[in-house]
Amino acid sequence: MSLLVVGSMAFDSIKSPFGEAEQIVGGSATYFSIAASCFTPVRLVSVVGRDFPEAAIGKLSARGIDLQGLTVAEGETFRWKGYYENDLNVAHTVRTNLNVFEDFAPVLPAEWKETPYVFLGNINPRLQLDVMAQIRKPRIVALDTMNFWIEKSPQPLREAIRNIDILVINEAEVRQLTGELNLIRAARLLMDAGPERVVIKRGEYGVLHLSGDGIFAVPAYPLDTIFDPTGAGDSFAGGFMGYLASMGDKEISEKDYRMATVYGSAVASFTVQAFGTQRLESLSRDDIAQRVSSFRSLSEIPG
Amino acid sequence: MSLLVVGSMAFDSIKSPFGEAEQIVGGSATYFSIAASCFTPVRLVSVVGRDFPEAAIGKLSARGIDLQGLTVAEGETFRWKGYYENDLNVAHTVRTNLNVFEDFAPVLPAEWKETPYVFLGNINPRLQLDVMAQIRKPRIVALDTMNFWIEKSPQPLREAIRNIDILVINEAEVRQLTGELNLIRAARLLMDAGPERVVIKRGEYGVLHLSGDGIFAVPAYPLDTIFDPTGAGDSFAGGFMGYLASMGDKEISEKDYRMATVYGSAVASFTVQAFGTQRLESLSRDDIAQRVSSFRSLSEIPG
Repeated sequence: MSLLVVGSMAFDSIKSPFGEAEQIVGGSATYFSIAASCFTPVRLVSVVGRDFPEAAIGKLSARGIDLQGLTVAEGETFRWKGYYENDLNVAHTVRTNLNVFEDFAPVLPAEWKETPYVFLGNINPRLQLDVMAQIRKPRIVALDTMNFWIEKSPQPLREAIRNIDILVINEAEVRQLTGELNLIRAARLLMDAGPERVVIKRGEYGVLHLSGDGIFAVPAYPLDTIFDPTGAGDSFAGGFMGYLASMGDKEISEKDYRMATVYGSAVASFTVQAFGTQRLESLSRDDIAQRVSSFRSLSEIPG
Repeated sequence: MSLLVVGSMAFDSIKSPFGEAEQIVGGSATYFSIAASCFTPVRLVSVVGRDFPEAAIGKLSARGIDLQGLTVAEGETFRWKGYYENDLNVAHTVRTNLNVFEDFAPVLPAEWKETPYVFLGNINPRLQLDVMAQIRKPRIVALDTMNFWIEKSPQPLREAIRNIDILVINEAEVRQLTGELNLIRAARLLMDAGPERVVIKRGEYGVLHLSGDGIFAVPAYPLDTIFDPTGAGDSFAGGFMGYLASMGDKEISEKDYRMATVYGSAVASFTVQAFGTQRLESLSRDDIAQRVSSFRSLSEIPG
């Protein structure tokens, strides 16, 4: 089934202890949609400037990502410059230029208003609410956010969170959103405030997926080559939601949610092995299946 | 089979965001031996001062821990004072008084020299070497250390590590010991330098167990009540080595190593639920079995 994502598309300039890259294509919606398109048809809602390369748009299109919802606006594309120190879990921002993103007002094409799966990427919570208001009867709505919006727009963010099914955020953000240090208690507070599930991204430590039915922990795949953690969280979300959307209209079971968490983790583990979307773009279904099987042997407790 | 541990016994004064405790019984050998005694007979080599409470010694004895190797020396017991901030993974030391530990020279009782399982707790690497020199034909020797010894005694430490089977240390120590940032590459360097296995403790993120046969990741058990992380690593090691020693003299398989890692994690997950050794002391085999089964559902990837 179709999966709609709204989020940023950007030029990133990134430095990590393992190299650097200047002005490469990035953004949450870019990583998410490439990852999700390994599993299901994707509808992308975002905005770029006239400077965004046609070749990059062509690549998304070639993956079957529907770009009807992509606005090409006068002006420059959103730009982010940042770096990682030895602790790859923390991104340090040097500069953010919103550019065309400043006036972004997502309007869904008429036939997209009934998209069953929706991912509200990390953008202004008011825009996330705008998109939710345009969607009719979705099956699953998931949302990501970040410290910036938790501080600047707590009210709209709270309202958005009240109406979603799955919250997908970082460990530090779980604590910041709730003011509760204990992660499990914090996640329960969030589930009391709206979503049925909280999926906590912990960088190189993997993912905790909490629901009323219990907790599922997936380690990050241990890699001896990590170049750039940028986009790992968005790729995880793309693999996770893409896998769920690929279930068709059958009822989603706890088992499906677990497998979605593993598939998301598998996809994310490839993203960090190169700068930008490079490795993600060349990912085959076979690569993913092999990595999922490696996850099994990584975490299998003998019977 | 018997398991010998050499390490510290101490009075700890601890403050965490969740409470504090003054001068409670602690030390690596204390936590280790209580945890291990859930599985196998334990032989304890350590030193305390005249101020160490007889009741505490009686409690160890009542668990079947053999205290022939415990010296009661003139002077005061080793004291540690520390605190944890919101990040429970980092212990901040306020004060360390070695006291009777300063002149500690472990001498094994004659009949202990053929103990098959040996754990060299986090003490001066020269003492670890002394103990190794006294042991004849052990089946498995494991060793723990800390940043202090990595900085102060790199040579004796390297020599000790060359002759052990399993290195059990923290994530940060793996990087510090090798100067290699990537954890997997760092663990491989360590395995090239001696031990067949490196078991990496990652606090609230669990454990990575690396060997020539691959990697096993166990998450830490997610708890909504954590009071004091002190002793979690030593309890893990105690459960881990205790489980291995309980295998008798059959050849230890990869499956056994995995289960030992899970049992260690299960025991450690109880330790942090109270200050000091309190929760650990009241642990039943049933408690442990239940927690191990919770670990299964926590990390099970559906088939």
